[in-house]
Amino acid sequence: MNNKLLVLGTIAYDAIETPFGKTGKILGGCATYIGLAASNFKTSCGLVSIIGSDFESAHWELLKKKKLDLTGVETLEGEKTFFWSGKYHNDLNTRTTLETQLNVLTKFEPKVPENFKDASIVLLGNLDPNIQMEVLRQMSKKPDLVVMDTMNFWIESYREKLDELIGKVDVISINDEEARQLTGKHSLVESAKLIQTLGPKYVIIKKGEHGALLFHENKIFCAPGLPLEEVFDPTGAGDSFIGGFSAYLSQRGKISFEEMKTAIIIGSALASFTVQEFGTTALEKISFTQLAQRIKTFKRLTEFEIELT
Amino acid sequence: MNNKLLVLGTIAYDAIETPFGKTGKILGGCATYIGLAASNFKTSCGLVSIIGSDFESAHWELLKKKKLDLTGVETLEGEKTFFWSGKYHNDLNTRTTLETQLNVLTKFEPKVPENFKDASIVLLGNLDPNIQMEVLRQMSKKPDLVVMDTMNFWIESYREKLDELIGKVDVISINDEEARQLTGKHSLVESAKLIQTLGPKYVIIKKGEHGALLFHENKIFCAPGLPLEEVFDPTGAGDSFIGGFSAYLSQRGKISFEEMKTAIIIGSALASFTVQEFGTTALEKISFTQLAQRIKTFKRLTEFEIELT
Repeated sequence: MNNKLLVLGTIAYDAIETPFGKTGKILGGCATYIGLAASNFKTSCGLVSIIGSDFESAHWELLKKKKLDLTGVETLEGEKTFFWSGKYHNDLNTRTTLETQLNVLTKFEPKVPENFKDASIVLLGNLDPNIQMEVLRQMSKKPDLVVMDTMNFWIESYREKLDELIGKVDVISINDEEARQLTGKHSLVESAKLIQTLGPKYVIIKKGEHGALLFHENKIFCAPGLPLEEVFDPTGAGDSFIGGFSAYLSQRGKISFEEMKTAIIIGSALASFTVQEFGTTALEKISFTQLAQRIKTFKRLTEFEIELT
Repeated sequence: MNNKLLVLGTIAYDAIETPFGKTGKILGGCATYIGLAASNFKTSCGLVSIIGSDFESAHWELLKKKKLDLTGVETLEGEKTFFWSGKYHNDLNTRTTLETQLNVLTKFEPKVPENFKDASIVLLGNLDPNIQMEVLRQMSKKPDLVVMDTMNFWIESYREKLDELIGKVDVISINDEEARQLTGKHSLVESAKLIQTLGPKYVIIKKGEHGALLFHENKIFCAPGLPLEEVFDPTGAGDSFIGGFSAYLSQRGKISFEEMKTAIIIGSALASFTVQEFGTTALEKISFTQLAQRIKTFKRLTEFEIELT
């Protein structure tokens, strides 16, 4: 395995409203969150994405400073960057999209840079399954691990293509409602089993504040949700999670259920930072010490001794 | 500490409908589930409850066989046992009460048996807070640990008495929605902090299939929910949980956050058996080996190694 991590995803501008406040246009997009999360690990991470000429140089510099390889990020002159605006409701578990301007996304033809065509890990962020498939097609060699994220919109409207793609990935990351939607099963155990028969050897089911489950063969790992006093903005939590997960595996250069258990805790820790401030603010400034500290907190959260007599 | 565990609660008949089937009149009631759960531990467990003359001798014999002390269970001649019937919806997380016949409950004046007035642990099962309070009042010496369970109905309609009672207990066990209802806080961390200021040093928040959280001072423990292929009947899960929790502490004769972590896993394991069959069926026949096996499963579910470099 090499330590190259190829990431497909959006780089976007978001405008977010939560019960705690409202932002103007801020940096967003799944590739952004994934890249920032990945920058905490010893991996060579390349993004495949598209932006418009309105993309601010300060944001470009931020991604460069985080040592992300941007060769695969195309700039469309005279066009605007993908824009999404949404409002979270009081419980922060549901949100309403206020506006979606696809802009450059309508012309997105992903191009995997030459030096990433042999990447050992490919992470297909939440996007049109046709685009996700195209990235896989361009790889010069079969990756050791293909990780994909998706969401309800693609499950509803792109089912056939999505099923084809699911047959080609090793790890799928979806939330509990999406797992139920995808399989028609209420029990997450049954859902995960069914998804495993479609292709992915590893199924990650995200449960928001309740943590995440990893299924592999007959094994299950349960990562706790960190009980937080305040969740400020859930945007990007899932992307930070899967970004940290994939980048940790890339750094380790080993793929197994045991490695993935750790990777899920690391992803959860990164996501727990992300939700504590608006947008990418918290994720941009995590130190290694803070991350290590939070991972210890996760460990303490579930550790117990048992003595049955 | 002595190893006496005094339990207040209902002994009832239930009729249950779930998406998987329907029962006739079956044995139920929180004291029944608590007692059956407690019978797996080396503790002297006495029930305070009330039944009618329709209570079947086979059910009485079952409770006796489980070595539960029934001195505190009053039989009202010519009256009928408390009856509840309910229907669970497809997701099994919500239910509708079809019928409640209070019967003997309207005349319930709890009497703590002499030999349990010095019990070190008192578990006040889900009942009218006035009755819960009366049991505490009858204790000849302050128990080392008072554990209480309650539910939305008492929070809505008996708030003043409930608050008085909450001020006198050490451990409160409620579900997430009830915690929010009780405190008006959405964040469970904030809820638990607020409840701690009302009296209980330990706050257990049950999250159904997502497990349970234990809060004490600034510490949190997160017990996973065991992902089950099929939940058959959720009735009595919370009672089995708190029954196992309290009985384990009673057997250990020690009270601390560390002991409670283990106690919560044991309670969760017992509840995971309960939901796999209708009513008390599964709980009645658990062997020590099965319980130990399931606890190991819980341990494996959350264990991970971390290596950050």
